[in-house]
Amino acid sequence: MKTSNTTIRLHWDELILAALKEDIPWEDVSANAVIGEDARGHADLIAKADGVLAGLPVFARTFALLDDAAEVVLHKREGEEVHAGERVAEVTGNMRAILSGERTALNFLQRMSGIATYTRETARLLEGTHTVLLDTRKTTPLLRSFEKYAVTVGGGRNHRFNLSDGVLLKDNHIGAAGGVANAIRRAREYAPFVRKIEVEVETLEELDEALAAGADIVMLDNMKGELLAEAVRRAKGRAQTEISGNVTRENVRQYVVLGVDYISSGALTHSAPILDLSLKHLKAV
Amino acid sequence: MKTSNTTIRLHWDELILAALKEDIPWEDVSANAVIGEDARGHADLIAKADGVLAGLPVFARTFALLDDAAEVVLHKREGEEVHAGERVAEVTGNMRAILSGERTALNFLQRMSGIATYTRETARLLEGTHTVLLDTRKTTPLLRSFEKYAVTVGGGRNHRFNLSDGVLLKDNHIGAAGGVANAIRRAREYAPFVRKIEVEVETLEELDEALAAGADIVMLDNMKGELLAEAVRRAKGRAQTEISGNVTRENVRQYVVLGVDYISSGALTHSAPILDLSLKHLKAV
Amino acid sequence: MKTSNTTIRLHWDELILAALKEDIPWEDVSANAVIGEDARGHADLIAKADGVLAGLPVFARTFALLDDAAEVVLHKREGEEVHAGERVAEVTGNMRAILSGERTALNFLQRMSGIATYTRETARLLEGTHTVLLDTRKTTPLLRSFEKYAVTVGGGRNHRFNLSDGVLLKDNHIGAAGGVANAIRRAREYAPFVRKIEVEVETLEELDEALAAGADIVMLDNMKGELLAEAVRRAKGRAQTEISGNVTRENVRQYVVLGVDYISSGALTHSAPILDLSLKHLKAV
Amino acid sequence: MKTSNTTIRLHWDELILAALKEDIPWEDVSANAVIGEDARGHADLIAKADGVLAGLPVFARTFALLDDAAEVVLHKREGEEVHAGERVAEVTGNMRAILSGERTALNFLQRMSGIATYTRETARLLEGTHTVLLDTRKTTPLLRSFEKYAVTVGGGRNHRFNLSDGVLLKDNHIGAAGGVANAIRRAREYAPFVRKIEVEVETLEELDEALAAGADIVMLDNMKGELLAEAVRRAKGRAQTEISGNVTRENVRQYVVLGVDYISSGALTHSAPILDLSLKHLKAV
Amino acid sequence: MKTSNTTIRLHWDELILAALKEDIPWEDVSANAVIGEDARGHADLIAKADGVLAGLPVFARTFALLDDAAEVVLHKREGEEVHAGERVAEVTGNMRAILSGERTALNFLQRMSGIATYTRETARLLEGTHTVLLDTRKTTPLLRSFEKYAVTVGGGRNHRFNLSDGVLLKDNHIGAAGGVANAIRRAREYAPFVRKIEVEVETLEELDEALAAGADIVMLDNMKGELLAEAVRRAKGRAQTEISGNVTRENVRQYVVLGVDYISSGALTHSAPILDLSLKHLKAV
Amino acid sequence: MKTSNTTIRLHWDELILAALKEDIPWEDVSANAVIGEDARGHADLIAKADGVLAGLPVFARTFALLDDAAEVVLHKREGEEVHAGERVAEVTGNMRAILSGERTALNFLQRMSGIATYTRETARLLEGTHTVLLDTRKTTPLLRSFEKYAVTVGGGRNHRFNLSDGVLLKDNHIGAAGGVANAIRRAREYAPFVRKIEVEVETLEELDEALAAGADIVMLDNMKGELLAEAVRRAKGRAQTEISGNVTRENVRQYVVLGVDYISSGALTHSAPILDLSLKHLKAV
Repeated sequence: MKTSNTTIRLHWDELILAALKEDIPWEDVSANAVIGEDARGHADLIAKADGVLAGLPVFARTFALLDDAAEVVLHKREGEEVHAGERVAEVTGNMRAILSGERTALNFLQRMSGIATYTRETARLLEGTHTVLLDTRKTTPLLRSFEKYAVTVGGGRNHRFNLSDGVLLKDNHIGAAGGVANAIRRAREYAPFVRKIEVEVETLEELDEALAAGADIVMLDNMKGELLAEAVRRAKGRAQTEISGNVTRENVRQYVVLGVDYISSGALTHSAPILDLSLKHLKAV
Repeated sequence: MKTSNTTIRLHWDELILAALKEDIPWEDVSANAVIGEDARGHADLIAKADGVLAGLPVFARTFALLDDAAEVVLHKREGEEVHAGERVAEVTGNMRAILSGERTALNFLQRMSGIATYTRETARLLEGTHTVLLDTRKTTPLLRSFEKYAVTVGGGRNHRFNLSDGVLLKDNHIGAAGGVANAIRRAREYAPFVRKIEVEVETLEELDEALAAGADIVMLDNMKGELLAEAVRRAKGRAQTEISGNVTRENVRQYVVLGVDYISSGALTHSAPILDLSLKHLKAV
Repeated sequence: MKTSNTTIRLHWDELILAALKEDIPWEDVSANAVIGEDARGHADLIAKADGVLAGLPVFARTFALLDDAAEVVLHKREGEEVHAGERVAEVTGNMRAILSGERTALNFLQRMSGIATYTRETARLLEGTHTVLLDTRKTTPLLRSFEKYAVTVGGGRNHRFNLSDGVLLKDNHIGAAGGVANAIRRAREYAPFVRKIEVEVETLEELDEALAAGADIVMLDNMKGELLAEAVRRAKGRAQTEISGNVTRENVRQYVVLGVDYISSGALTHSAPILDLSLKHLKAV
Repeated sequence: MKTSNTTIRLHWDELILAALKEDIPWEDVSANAVIGEDARGHADLIAKADGVLAGLPVFARTFALLDDAAEVVLHKREGEEVHAGERVAEVTGNMRAILSGERTALNFLQRMSGIATYTRETARLLEGTHTVLLDTRKTTPLLRSFEKYAVTVGGGRNHRFNLSDGVLLKDNHIGAAGGVANAIRRAREYAPFVRKIEVEVETLEELDEALAAGADIVMLDNMKGELLAEAVRRAKGRAQTEISGNVTRENVRQYVVLGVDYISSGALTHSAPILDLSLKHLKAV
Repeated sequence: MKTSNTTIRLHWDELILAALKEDIPWEDVSANAVIGEDARGHADLIAKADGVLAGLPVFARTFALLDDAAEVVLHKREGEEVHAGERVAEVTGNMRAILSGERTALNFLQRMSGIATYTRETARLLEGTHTVLLDTRKTTPLLRSFEKYAVTVGGGRNHRFNLSDGVLLKDNHIGAAGGVANAIRRAREYAPFVRKIEVEVETLEELDEALAAGADIVMLDNMKGELLAEAVRRAKGRAQTEISGNVTRENVRQYVVLGVDYISSGALTHSAPILDLSLKHLKAV
Repeated sequence: MKTSNTTIRLHWDELILAALKEDIPWEDVSANAVIGEDARGHADLIAKADGVLAGLPVFARTFALLDDAAEVVLHKREGEEVHAGERVAEVTGNMRAILSGERTALNFLQRMSGIATYTRETARLLEGTHTVLLDTRKTTPLLRSFEKYAVTVGGGRNHRFNLSDGVLLKDNHIGAAGGVANAIRRAREYAPFVRKIEVEVETLEELDEALAAGADIVMLDNMKGELLAEAVRRAKGRAQTEISGNVTRENVRQYVVLGVDYISSGALTHSAPILDLSLKHLKAV
């Protein structure tokens, strides 16, 4: 899912502004003390590690929100790989605005690029198979749209965005409904008809019940080895299959061989280390 | 810095609500499809890894915001260590509210506990010295107050909160002001008088200039080995000393031996992996 | 889709408060001029026409937001039919709060009940068939969640909630993509995998192309008579079928005979007249 | 009351944005899947029924908020009559923005034009008399400013905007105050002196009491035939007269003959059907 | 105009919370450092000067918003006179909450009581006449509702609240309309019919024109001595008269003798010094 | 502390807009009734009293928020003295926008200039000494940033901005902590390390304890004459000294002679009368 201007205008501008206010509740005392109000400057955005870039529009927008005349010239594209030492972009604008926006712009960019980098590395391990890498709802509170976007930049796909736009029936739902078939039936009656129905199953019996009840997607939970392989075989052609649970860059390969349709990994958003980037060479222009 | 009711009421409730809205823009389709509106349930919060707990008030508040009658009984205290498999808390309340709030509550708690855990482990390496571990402004946008709080729970201390409540003159500020002494003088004239003035210095000459100009704190940047040791000696009794820059749990020990007053580490907030926790055993009551 | 406390807390309270502020930007001059601050009163909610009730929780919540001690005792249930002259509920509470909240509470209730009434009457015409009545996105700006909820109370089902949680490829999308098959392929690659893909088709050729490309739902647009019947036959078992476009209470029957799966009607939300209800017999208690 | 830029900037932009967010909580999946980010398009706004246009500035503003470069060229003026099939306006701009804003822009325009149309038709029936048609507070929650504006475009006038900016003493107020005269006296003492005092009376005795107490306006409630005529005669020259209660396009003529000053009709805003308009002929430019 | 719970709930709570956030963007460092989280305390609100109290509900609400269990026992009523040294109220509650809310609560109370005091003193000078003292729109931005309320507590009356709820045609409006009569006619056609029309006149000719055109209120601007007296005489029985312009406690008497209906004074809200009040004797309970 | 664009964009625009909405909840009825929508006008901003200007950027921004094309040409600089009758600025723009924004723009400017004027006059009395004039937290709720800024324009300096960015231990804190030394120790352990610690002392014993405990600043409370002089002498070179408490323009000289470092005065913000300014000579252009 690529971001669009619509997303920036309707959602991201507001969140970026809130982040700027968090960092500047009144003014940037240091910058304002020593920099003239109208001084203009130029700085370079430099990568300090290898990785995949995500969040360049957010980086640029942060400065634009502080200074209409700020300009960010990109030397790398969103989703492109970058190597330590490379210049990613140049920022020109009001010098106070550059200094005041620097940390917020980088905090977004580093985190989003970290997620894209981790996703790219994990998705690479699935290349040549038909298995697709998905994210989860284990995102940072308030930053889900940035993080899910970064996953797509890195080559992953998005699972449901929230509790309203997808149906996923887990053990607790199934227990409350009195079984897999009942849960699916109730969900189908209740949910908007454009929702797919996904069910978490833990045994082959539950799987059979789910398939019989017409589940669109089955999440195979806690299944391993031959059991898992058998489950994937049974579901083939009848429902899409998803594997979830503690999937990381390190262990994803073991699931690939099974021919499952989707593997979802919370680690993409909750465990990706940041990609180190830095604003350098600020000088007056 | 311990959280207080004031913080929760004036700031956190609003952010927790926004996070809940992010995850539930309309309703929890799955829960509402299969769970009765008035069903009540009980669940256990279980640790799935060893670590330090931070964010239990946020975890509890998340359910309270969805259900006035929700009750969270804690078996562990904020800041206490927990081991995989231990029961941390029990949640009782409306069953839909438990299911609908689960992910948001955990997303906060896991992240904050991850930071506290990483901080505790890093701070331990400074024990027996007078050196204090600090955080930075490299926090997740919009979540700074949660993350800085988690650092203190883990045993770290907070550096400035934002660009308005502390003065830190970096190379760019010094360049713009025409030297260390000028920058300090201007900041002292400009900033509210309760602000301490901190200056980043890269050479002994700059250090001497900063000390002569009356800097309250000197950040020793890019100094290593004997140069760093000499800088710490010179500053002793004249200004507080801080070391910063890529400090991690892995390399923090090397700075301790120098007798520096403060070591700040962005990794505490931008690189701490989450602490895995899970809501289990939901049953009707 | 039935409302839950979660919806009220996370979304409706905020909108009801905004509506109250719209009507009371400062204070209710008339009530405050003549009614004592602590006077308590009791009033009856009376139906002035026959219809289906929807929005009773919103009605009650309006008074609760003005007066914690306000109590609304219901004599009718949400979704129940009511006849002119019947007492629907009793309101007891601060007399100023009753007077000040009256108009806002009724404006919500009358509109929502009007939609439920119109929907019930329309849905009745589909009884005995397997065809399901759907709403559309032709809702009043800012009130979609109230109106889509009212549709479900009346016995209709919800189509997608918004542009983010469902995919519907119309002529403009198809034109831009260069054909039905291309549009479906791109959407499948792009959209979160839990989204169903719906395509609008105008000819049998387009229908065949959509079915071949794996559309989950086909919207049969501008088809009539035998052409429409043939389209429904072809799609059966391969995709769900939906008919849309100027469907009203008056003309819905003509589509039913065709065996289509879904009929969607914008009239449910944009053309339903209000159900007249009134607050009567206010007296001091 | 004609809208002005002030209203758009201070109030409507915010509400239009909220409506866009309601319809696009994350992104327009369908448009973004198949339309390039920078594609530009052109479309026609076509009337599909006869009526009076109101809300063209809101229609135009919706696209402008999504795309600074969007341009709406009007072929009809606000308040002008339009016939089915006529082209009302042309929209040029980013193609995604046109598609993403279409529904929201039309939802506003259709509703506002529906109100203007209904009002115009009703007001026409009063032509040649001195009786003025008024709206009420029976508006859609949150949309009052749009709807009251549409009434004026249609040729009606606005009654009070809210409970704070006008005084209207109804039976409940009068009861609480212990009679008409007391209620008027208290209101006169209490309300800002620029408020007119309006009182609802049901008998000639109450009317006399109200006139004696100096009411500025008397609302004649539940009076019919000769009683009503007598009431209008008595009030003439002493207070303005208003008739209210279930006035519609169908029955308004019966009140006109009485020489009353004002007739207010809730139907203008709560029962006007939408005016059907559509965005057509989208093509790349 | 007396405040009501409605005003507090719909408007003041939000503004009081915003004021608390302004003073506590993160936490009260001093209180939290030395006071235990659960300590409870008791303090006295003491007057340090003579005056009239206004804002006691705001004072109490400030603590309630920080601590549900906070209790404020009043020893003086709203609008009552107080003398230096008298105990006005007692506050009991969480000790941190008392300390953290103290300044905000006092900043409101001192300012509102200052206005009430100044108003009372000015209004006293009009006693025995029929002339009423009014406020203006020269209020502190964002605090108008608090300040206009304080004026009424002090014994003044409110002029219009804002530019939307009253019509006042000044020289600029009259110039643009091409004369007094035209301006009045246009306003009467345009404004909601419940608005009174007030016109500012500077000469007897303009006055005559305004009276002939049916102005409800005439503001006599820049008239002095016999001219002013003549203007008041001419308007008597035809329109209400208002005098405005630099009216203060010191000079108000000179206008009283003229028999004018209203005298408005911006000084009530823009020049009233605060009434000094202090929170004393905090002790643990 | 001078304002910067950052402050305007992140904070002031929002507050100015809120102030405009407070004054124009719907539209400016008077202006819209008589002025054409597209009329442009020109007006002069004239000083009606002598004083110091502060808030010109806020004045200009108010019109810009209503009309992008509004232009304000300044004839005086921020902080410059002005005399009654002088033209301060010229405003050109949409005539409705000028009329609608006039009151809000002036309400800000008059209040801020009043503070700057009072501060300048007070600060002048400290000229030739090393004593610095400070403000306090006794500001108007919600307007602190405007008022603290105005103090700096007038030549004063800012004390802490809020309860989070400075530590000030008063008698209540000291009592709760069990003495001056304990309070200081706890604050030092608790507060972010960039905070200075200020302590209020009332006796020489407390002063000695504070100095021994390493207080950065001592506030000498309720000390007079020789006792105060002795306190200042003892603190010299060990901590900065501040005097507070009912300091006004009238009595500030008596503290100056003592050689204290800082004198803080709440009167600067809570007792400064407004500076009278007026918008004149509006004419069409």
